[in-house]
Amino acid sequence: MSEVTVPGKFIVIEGLEGAGKSTAVTAVTEFLASHGVRDILTTREPGGTPLAEQLRNIVKSPTLDEPVAPETELLLMYASRAQLVKTVIEPALAAGKWVLGDRHDLSSRAYQGGGRGIDDGQIQAIKHAVLGDFKPDLTLYMDIDPEVGLARARGRGELDRIELEALDFFVRTRERYLTLAKQDPSIRTVDAGVAIPQVTQQINDLLAEEVLPWLSKC
Amino acid sequence: MSEVTVPGKFIVIEGLEGAGKSTAVTAVTEFLASHGVRDILTTREPGGTPLAEQLRNIVKSPTLDEPVAPETELLLMYASRAQLVKTVIEPALAAGKWVLGDRHDLSSRAYQGGGRGIDDGQIQAIKHAVLGDFKPDLTLYMDIDPEVGLARARGRGELDRIELEALDFFVRTRERYLTLAKQDPSIRTVDAGVAIPQVTQQINDLLAEEVLPWLSKC
Repeated sequence: MSEVTVPGKFIVIEGLEGAGKSTAVTAVTEFLASHGVRDILTTREPGGTPLAEQLRNIVKSPTLDEPVAPETELLLMYASRAQLVKTVIEPALAAGKWVLGDRHDLSSRAYQGGGRGIDDGQIQAIKHAVLGDFKPDLTLYMDIDPEVGLARARGRGELDRIELEALDFFVRTRERYLTLAKQDPSIRTVDAGVAIPQVTQQINDLLAEEVLPWLSKC
Repeated sequence: MSEVTVPGKFIVIEGLEGAGKSTAVTAVTEFLASHGVRDILTTREPGGTPLAEQLRNIVKSPTLDEPVAPETELLLMYASRAQLVKTVIEPALAAGKWVLGDRHDLSSRAYQGGGRGIDDGQIQAIKHAVLGDFKPDLTLYMDIDPEVGLARARGRGELDRIELEALDFFVRTRERYLTLAKQDPSIRTVDAGVAIPQVTQQINDLLAEEVLPWLSKC
């Protein structure tokens, strides 16, 4: 198939630890490639630039000898995000590239909002102050029972500062994810509690519905 | 004189590089001590906690190999500020201590607003989202001609990433400082372009006017 040249789109994978976001990134990349989209930039948050990766290390370090205020955590997530969006994602989209992100704004609203209890209006005020109306074209939310996801994450090795939170933190985070997904048609929910082939099938079905129309318009 | 016990107050020293903020911190500390206020916590921004000092190092490093988006710089300043206010300043004030800060919110409005050109409304939106109505009881703005201040700062050694900006950046920053000082009666301007004894005299006069009434109320 010949290479497709369409305006770049920004697709984000979201979900709790152990929800299978890496599997989803692979599935989306393969789907896009099989439909002729090859110029894909993969990023992650927090992080994605050298400076933003420094912030990731600070905010996720479980060895900090001081408590991190929820507001500090929130602002570090947005500092990382602003740096990535302004210096990487926006230039890539402007150059016609597709961008595939492992986490974005929805993570802050779910973790710092649902998990930490910061008011969603405050979070949105910060978002709009620094990023205006910028948002992903499509978000795939990988929904998993927190107990299942955390067991998977623990199996991968040491947990970071945020992953060390108690279960109810992740229960609140998941609830917020589900609430926000219901409010925004550009967020599609994937049942990530099933076997990988079934997860991939759901992702392919959703992408066929959401992404193929973008490609056929060209 | 016996020790004075009054509710803690938050006094901030502001100004361009080389304006003599350290001299002002000393003068304020000595004035307060001479009037019986001895439980004074001195802080600085960005920084003031181990985590916030890490952010200070990142945001001021002239060796970063990527451009720092203005929005990132702004959010790092507020992340540092949120951490300092929530974990150090608010607890100290609540315990009745006085807090003397080398820079605070006005620096962001002057440097990232005036200098970098970020809209003041956006800056204020972030401020209110994370810190609400929290503000210093008194700010002393040390006003200096940027050329004079930068020459002094250069004489002290290597300049950091922000100090390496061109002169017009500091001209805009000073203009914003002056504009904001005119709008807020809790910001008092000190002419920092004169000899140190005259600077100290101005500070003592301002503190006599602003701070003595707080002390006599007890």
